[in-house]
Amino acid sequence: MSQITHLLNWRYAAKKLQANNAVPDDKLEPILEAIRLSASSSGLQPYQVLVVTDPELKAQIRPVAWNQSQVTDCSHLLVFAAWDNYTAERINSMFDLVNEQRGFKNEGWEAYRQQLLNHYPQRPAEQNFEHAARQAYIGLGSALLAAAEQQVDATPMEGFEPEKVDAILGLAELGLKSVLLLPLGYREVEGDWLVNLKKVRRSKADFVIQR
Amino acid sequence: MSQITHLLNWRYAAKKLQANNAVPDDKLEPILEAIRLSASSSGLQPYQVLVVTDPELKAQIRPVAWNQSQVTDCSHLLVFAAWDNYTAERINSMFDLVNEQRGFKNEGWEAYRQQLLNHYPQRPAEQNFEHAARQAYIGLGSALLAAAEQQVDATPMEGFEPEKVDAILGLAELGLKSVLLLPLGYREVEGDWLVNLKKVRRSKADFVIQR
Repeated sequence: MSQITHLLNWRYAAKKLQANNAVPDDKLEPILEAIRLSASSSGLQPYQVLVVTDPELKAQIRPVAWNQSQVTDCSHLLVFAAWDNYTAERINSMFDLVNEQRGFKNEGWEAYRQQLLNHYPQRPAEQNFEHAARQAYIGLGSALLAAAEQQVDATPMEGFEPEKVDAILGLAELGLKSVLLLPLGYREVEGDWLVNLKKVRRSKADFVIQR
Repeated sequence: MSQITHLLNWRYAAKKLQANNAVPDDKLEPILEAIRLSASSSGLQPYQVLVVTDPELKAQIRPVAWNQSQVTDCSHLLVFAAWDNYTAERINSMFDLVNEQRGFKNEGWEAYRQQLLNHYPQRPAEQNFEHAARQAYIGLGSALLAAAEQQVDATPMEGFEPEKVDAILGLAELGLKSVLLLPLGYREVEGDWLVNLKKVRRSKADFVIQR
């Protein structure tokens, strides 16, 4: 079996995390690195990851996240926060970084920059935010695999009130909107109704269509 | 370095694929399996993966995908196609499968089913499609890592006309809308302007926010 398949079978959305077992830095770092290295549309990386460790902030977030216990039991609450819009400044900043890191300007790359500048900032902010939010989900895909590799449990959550989380974390001032929570920790086998249940997915015959 | 980090550094969005070097089945299967096993909201897996190998279909898709050569040079063109809406039938079908596979009905799970049934089908189709589309991006995150593990190149593409791809593949009849293309193949080093350029990402200091 491939290692990726193995990791995907190992992981699940832990419903109960150990309250006093912190993920050490050397296991946290590769998870953050996997998100940072993930693919994104045009390489814009149109989101940030917040690492919330302050117990008071976690306690404020829990009631606006369906009171899910993992929010406060986890040692690190990752918050994926997407850009609220594509601006010329944001697009230029990424293209400038590419030029700086590669040490030269490429004509095709500059034409592509211009294409994005002529297109993205003119679109409604909501459309741009939706597009940015999708990219964060690629990062989530990487994060779940990276966490499994470290044998760290990670529970993806969409069940929260984004505006309230944004307010608690001051995201509007940063031009960000929360799209995903990902508490990291270790499964508490006692009290987790899901831990011993079979992972269920549609069969390959029902999921894949050949053409 | 963690294996996941290594795979993310190995991969890139190949701009030119070898035209006559097919990905063998034993390398294709773990890529499809990684998508199938990926996490999704409430476990609904609200998308399908099409594996397009018919040269005629690939040739029809290429002109509506910015004429990108990978579409016809790849041996397998994966098309991620999201549910166009959440219907009671689709929700029930997934909850029924879970009960069938686990061999019992769980009260909490049934209450959760009811919650989704009371909520999702009443929302606008467009909102449900956007939500479903996001889940496909988690699968993309897994697919890119699974492909890298197999040393298969994979180029994620949003640059195409979804309605035209939908028409070519007959997706509307299936209640699906294309959201991502992912050609699979082997990089053609000659003629790929990107292959030797540095992967650029924002630094951890610019990407991660501690709270």
